[in-house]
Amino acid sequence: MEAARGIASLGSKVVLVELRERLGGTPDSASYSSFTLDHRKVSDVLASTREEVESNPLIDVRLQSRLTAFEGKAGEFKATLTNIKGTSEVVDCASVVIATGFQHFDPGRETQMYGYYEYEDVITLVDAEKMLSAGKFVRPSTGEPPKAVCFIQCVGSRDRRIGNEYCSKVCCGVSSKEAIEIRELVPDCKVFVFYIDMRMYGFWEDRIYWKAQEEHRVNFVRGIVTEIIQKDGRLLVKGEDTTMGRPMEVTMDVVVLAVGMEPSRGTREVGPILGVAQEKHGFIELTGGSFDTVGTSVPGIFVAGAAAGPKDLDDSISMAGAAAMKAVAIARRPAVTA
Amino acid sequence: MEAARGIASLGSKVVLVELRERLGGTPDSASYSSFTLDHRKVSDVLASTREEVESNPLIDVRLQSRLTAFEGKAGEFKATLTNIKGTSEVVDCASVVIATGFQHFDPGRETQMYGYYEYEDVITLVDAEKMLSAGKFVRPSTGEPPKAVCFIQCVGSRDRRIGNEYCSKVCCGVSSKEAIEIRELVPDCKVFVFYIDMRMYGFWEDRIYWKAQEEHRVNFVRGIVTEIIQKDGRLLVKGEDTTMGRPMEVTMDVVVLAVGMEPSRGTREVGPILGVAQEKHGFIELTGGSFDTVGTSVPGIFVAGAAAGPKDLDDSISMAGAAAMKAVAIARRPAVTA
Repeated sequence: MEAARGIASLGSKVVLVELRERLGGTPDSASYSSFTLDHRKVSDVLASTREEVESNPLIDVRLQSRLTAFEGKAGEFKATLTNIKGTSEVVDCASVVIATGFQHFDPGRETQMYGYYEYEDVITLVDAEKMLSAGKFVRPSTGEPPKAVCFIQCVGSRDRRIGNEYCSKVCCGVSSKEAIEIRELVPDCKVFVFYIDMRMYGFWEDRIYWKAQEEHRVNFVRGIVTEIIQKDGRLLVKGEDTTMGRPMEVTMDVVVLAVGMEPSRGTREVGPILGVAQEKHGFIELTGGSFDTVGTSVPGIFVAGAAAGPKDLDDSISMAGAAAMKAVAIARRPAVTA
Repeated sequence: MEAARGIASLGSKVVLVELRERLGGTPDSASYSSFTLDHRKVSDVLASTREEVESNPLIDVRLQSRLTAFEGKAGEFKATLTNIKGTSEVVDCASVVIATGFQHFDPGRETQMYGYYEYEDVITLVDAEKMLSAGKFVRPSTGEPPKAVCFIQCVGSRDRRIGNEYCSKVCCGVSSKEAIEIRELVPDCKVFVFYIDMRMYGFWEDRIYWKAQEEHRVNFVRGIVTEIIQKDGRLLVKGEDTTMGRPMEVTMDVVVLAVGMEPSRGTREVGPILGVAQEKHGFIELTGGSFDTVGTSVPGIFVAGAAAGPKDLDDSISMAGAAAMKAVAIARRPAVTA
């Protein structure tokens, strides 16, 4: 949406292709509560952005549609779009912005040790976000407020065994933010975050991480969790506190797994159709070097956001603006140089 | 330069105001060797970018100049530029992009414990970068290759005592990159990095951090350094290894202080002239919320890069593109809506 409104703000036409029945991507489909450094509700921010995009006469929104074929070169691409009814149409376009995003790591896949599909009270950042956006935080198994909650960081990230070697970049920030929200909603509940490195870069350091510790008494423990088992109806979390150098056994009511990012199905599928290079996990590969954050292996095709790898909201919004600028520059380039 | 060429690529004119005698900013003035995830030499990348910018007929480069007065509103600003000879000129412009960047923290200021001005072999990331860009790495006191080098992270960052509460975002990546370069240049030299959290987000995790450990045998130690003293012509580094939970005393030939970011003098000074809000450290304040990464408190004035806080190169380049897009959108907006 940000790339589309950027392009339109420069006076160019955009066709915005969306697989779902509504614009808003993962923050909408996964019912995010709030963004990490913004106190507004995600649903409000998305609603006003959606309205702005949908009412813009230069933006042609195609819901429940997907790209099914593609040919041509920069300045004169032909994109075949197919909607849910099976109707196809060929659209001429000068350039393309890929904004197909990510999906959350499925913690049942190869990390059985955390018992996500086994224990009702082991949830993910996304499940927690859904509760928080409804203004509550309870033990899923009982519906009661929890007395103790912990977050386990790097689930599906920084992990060669499962094939996701990268850091997913946003989970430390999201966990800290959710930890604050839980402390606000359930003041009696103790909240712990078990981490390897707290990657609270830039202003996240004091505006979220310090705030979580100093104002909200969230406990951050550098440690490794090796096993979660059920005991007397609660969850026994076993591992090692690596700062204190001792084994750790703590009882929790809810365990939140900080699941990382993987390329979405859309990101995996759009690459071969567009003919752009993808890195080994399936993210769209950035090939332009240090001074180009949105260029793909095909001139005229750009990428914005987590389709290009783990990106936070700032990255995604800035990349959308940069991609919009480059997409329009190609559309306006005199034909002789195309 | 990236914002200027973005604006020009959309067909709009730009006046690019530079205080120094040459374009390139801190990477140029501080003689950076290489960018964190790009193997090209910084000087080569800057030279080709500079040439492209200077030869663009839409970009009017004003070297050794500064903004001295400013008035008007979005779409019709009047900026007074004054050059080194004292000649002033008023330029009409629709919008402004602030790209005045950062300066490196001065490790003599209030962190005497590291002995930067006392011991010749205590240097900063910037001093190290300068040696590396000349293709060497030696003990400054002797000119000989070192046998042991350590990096101390978070010097001037995450530190309430000195007033810089934020994390400077790039130092972990830069230190790891320099550590690899030192190991390549001086294979017999042991290299250590003492850190609080290694903030190697996204693809930095495996492409630099794992690479440094696995391919280049750089030793990362979670620890706190409390004191550096000279002993037998070498440096005795004292502190605590917080993972092993024991005191640490190691002898080094060179200690590299990973100095963080502070707003540059240009950033501090340009804020009041333009009338834009600055956060408490002097960085330009971003006021647009989650869906706007370049908007300041004044409509029509945008910011790109580390003038807005600790930013990595990707942030800076993406923000430059987004700011270019927004700056041009204002220039092209019909006058009636201005």
